[in-house]
Amino acid sequence: MIKRIGTHTIEFTNRPRIVGFGSVVGKKEGEGPLNDWFDKIHTDTSLGKETWEKAEAMLQQEAVTLSLEKSGLDKSNIDYIFAGDLLNQCVSSSYGLRSMEIPFLGQYGACSTMAQTISMAAVFAESGAADFCAAVTSSHFCSAERQFRYPLQYGGQRTPTAQWTVTGSGSVIVGAIENGNFKFGEDMLNTNGDITLKKQIGIEHICTGKIIDMGITDANNMGAAMAGAAADTISCYFKDTGTYYDDYDLIVTGDLGKVGSELLYELLGKDKIFIEKNHKDCGLMIFDLKKQDVHAGGSGCGCSGSVLCSYLIKNMMKRKYNDILFIATGALMSPTIVQQGESIPGIAHLVHLKNCTE
Amino acid sequence: MIKRIGTHTIEFTNRPRIVGFGSVVGKKEGEGPLNDWFDKIHTDTSLGKETWEKAEAMLQQEAVTLSLEKSGLDKSNIDYIFAGDLLNQCVSSSYGLRSMEIPFLGQYGACSTMAQTISMAAVFAESGAADFCAAVTSSHFCSAERQFRYPLQYGGQRTPTAQWTVTGSGSVIVGAIENGNFKFGEDMLNTNGDITLKKQIGIEHICTGKIIDMGITDANNMGAAMAGAAADTISCYFKDTGTYYDDYDLIVTGDLGKVGSELLYELLGKDKIFIEKNHKDCGLMIFDLKKQDVHAGGSGCGCSGSVLCSYLIKNMMKRKYNDILFIATGALMSPTIVQQGESIPGIAHLVHLKNCTE
Repeated sequence: MIKRIGTHTIEFTNRPRIVGFGSVVGKKEGEGPLNDWFDKIHTDTSLGKETWEKAEAMLQQEAVTLSLEKSGLDKSNIDYIFAGDLLNQCVSSSYGLRSMEIPFLGQYGACSTMAQTISMAAVFAESGAADFCAAVTSSHFCSAERQFRYPLQYGGQRTPTAQWTVTGSGSVIVGAIENGNFKFGEDMLNTNGDITLKKQIGIEHICTGKIIDMGITDANNMGAAMAGAAADTISCYFKDTGTYYDDYDLIVTGDLGKVGSELLYELLGKDKIFIEKNHKDCGLMIFDLKKQDVHAGGSGCGCSGSVLCSYLIKNMMKRKYNDILFIATGALMSPTIVQQGESIPGIAHLVHLKNCTE
Repeated sequence: MIKRIGTHTIEFTNRPRIVGFGSVVGKKEGEGPLNDWFDKIHTDTSLGKETWEKAEAMLQQEAVTLSLEKSGLDKSNIDYIFAGDLLNQCVSSSYGLRSMEIPFLGQYGACSTMAQTISMAAVFAESGAADFCAAVTSSHFCSAERQFRYPLQYGGQRTPTAQWTVTGSGSVIVGAIENGNFKFGEDMLNTNGDITLKKQIGIEHICTGKIIDMGITDANNMGAAMAGAAADTISCYFKDTGTYYDDYDLIVTGDLGKVGSELLYELLGKDKIFIEKNHKDCGLMIFDLKKQDVHAGGSGCGCSGSVLCSYLIKNMMKRKYNDILFIATGALMSPTIVQQGESIPGIAHLVHLKNCTE
């Protein structure tokens, strides 16, 4: 059942479960601290394709395929696929997934897309609209740089606040639950792997963000543009649920990076919320900032997507973490309108993942 | 309750209602055959803004404001806003709606966005996730031409299959129903207009489309790129529900135009489905093809959006039509990837609107 709590939070009393997940990343991400956790690392970030856009589309296709394999499901078992990315007209999603033959609902939340697609999948699963949904996103350093900033060949200088767009994709399969059991398809799930694990990670809450504009006009300072949105969503969720930072093992933001994370602490501090102790940012987890020359950290839809679908979910399965708030953050940035002098609005969507012990 | 029918159709047993709607268009649309039906016509299509993108953002803001006014609701009563458009990074939505302070879920379905946003709003309303949702989209001839084809100043020659992107926006407010009554806020609704009318138009079914690629590579032949998707969704819906074209007063496609509509008849004919008698296309309704020099007809998210939120909904209120299948069609077209030699995939989402007689 879908239960509304406070102003903007939804509780899923049946807790739809994550029954499959997959992560695919590029070379630089594979050389970072999360190296051992990814399902697949491409040392050739072109993936053998003739363009970066087609390479990124392939990342999504591979991530979905991996998540399906782990779930034991076939693409024909998936009722809806929620997908989005950073490219104009979301082409990694539409071209990467066009051969899937699954009803397709394109999402656009910039780098908040991983949380947004999971939110939609959870609402569809819990409401009876679907038995199984896929939620997927991606980004690629080379396609993003040339679209949002400079073509790589230009060799533009990067500012200290700049972040490095992650080449990667994450996909999860969400399954509907009724009375503690999958509504449909448990037999199919059983054919591949441990059913208990597949019943383990539940989606307990979502909190959908509003558009928050901090007045940032610097396309090289995405962290600052998103920090206000993250603070707003986190603060709203704590109010709605009456919980506090230490009720969770981990509070993970998407890609605030160094600059954005510091700003987040400052903003939440004004509301007397202090998350530093339990906070990690996917943009700071995926790269070694000292060694990998990524300036303020990683970014992109694929940043939070690939970290969630590797390190975070795998450590929930190991029960190192049992209770995670995953807040993917997006800068609704468009080069066209930034060149017209407009500031960059941010958005952040929250998903509460919890290990189900029963 | 959400009930699944056949393979891809959802039935809403409570039929969430359209409690408000608004349409705003530009000069050329205001000179067309639907002239009398629009809420607002801008004779200055720049809307007094310094750029086309900002003008388009304003169209969305105005359409949402009009739909809120007609519903008698305040923006604070809206739980979620589902919005999308054709511009890179969906900027008309994010910039047009950033001042609304409503939890925002950006959608990308190209010109199918009006049906997609209504589908999402209906699922959220029927599932208990929301009392009221807004669903909105827009397009603008000038912003679309320069982004997808040529800058206007270039004066590019238009081919006979080319369509004219509509300058316009449509917005609807969807309200949740339980036991025939609004779940919340009937008092608010009552303060403005006739509550019976507001209980009139229900969303009975949705059918979400798959990505269908017909192999079209001509960016000036969107109708053909979308016809296959429309045929697939319509045919799937008829199979799922066991209904046929003459069970409906009208079967309205979004923006197939002349070329796409003829192709749709041909494709459906192969499945022995003949919709010609009851079929209209928003792209052929909004312009006078003989007088207005729009070649194969109108197109764009704002085409089906503004026609639905004016002529169609108003004629349902007059009970000229009681039962409409609204199939918004989208070409998932990106100049970048078309220049890389890829074909243009299409998508079509269906919404079944029905007058509630009780």
